[in-house]
Amino acid sequence: MERALIEAASAAARGEIPVGAVVTDADGAILAACGNEVEARSDPTAHAEILALRAAAARRGGKFLPGCTLTVTLEPCPLCAAAISLFRIDRLMFGAYDPKSGGIEHGPRVLAHPTCHHRPDIVGGVAERECAELITGFFKNLRNPANSAGR
Amino acid sequence: MERALIEAASAAARGEIPVGAVVTDADGAILAACGNEVEARSDPTAHAEILALRAAAARRGGKFLPGCTLTVTLEPCPLCAAAISLFRIDRLMFGAYDPKSGGIEHGPRVLAHPTCHHRPDIVGGVAERECAELITGFFKNLRNPANSAGR
Repeated sequence: MERALIEAASAAARGEIPVGAVVTDADGAILAACGNEVEARSDPTAHAEILALRAAAARRGGKFLPGCTLTVTLEPCPLCAAAISLFRIDRLMFGAYDPKSGGIEHGPRVLAHPTCHHRPDIVGGVAERECAELITGFFKNLRNPANSAGR
Repeated sequence: MERALIEAASAAARGEIPVGAVVTDADGAILAACGNEVEARSDPTAHAEILALRAAAARRGGKFLPGCTLTVTLEPCPLCAAAISLFRIDRLMFGAYDPKSGGIEHGPRVLAHPTCHHRPDIVGGVAERECAELITGFFKNLRNPANSAGR
């Protein structure tokens, strides 16, 4: 989660919503580490998880990621929840819960339905406070008029 | 839907599950038309809808697709349902229903939750028989031993 937090902080510094994601293999080696790039790519699907999953699969030269873990600072949204299943990740570890836009423990709970063809092991709330503070700090900063003059 | 069906048939000819998607603007002009490219890109998220949405947004030079319609031959899966919401498409029109993997009228029903921040108008079952026959024909062909020798 340490590396995912670094990616999230780096995303914040670029003006992106601070979410970071890391894919590790069965030995714990990092296959890919990405931050959110929605603004940079002008693509609302360029979430940290999607970029990390795609990069990890490309690095392994396969379509799926069996034996791998995705670690992400925020509860994945429904898009990323579905991608996690499609890439056949073994384990999902996430930090802060996201009652407004999360898709794992909230909203459509994408991985909890019988039509979900691959469901990873899930651990939520890892380093929760630190992960949540990154997000709340980012939006608090955005709402501060002193910081919005140049936007 | 006619163009989406052409894209789906073309995907089948490349050995991809035959799904085609088209994004049109408010005047009905085609912004993007894509078929499924999961095998070609070795990316389980390279669904026709995702490719078409991304290409249409890139063509318009923006992050969102207000005023646009996505037409697709099969009920979108949860991944694509979430992407449809994220790109803020006005209208979704799909052909065959997909009880096994659909995410609109089946499974997690991604667009039906209060945490879905943008919900398009939805019309399902358009040219349903033709769209469904493409899919069932493809899988019937795959299961025919005479066609699987080279796989």
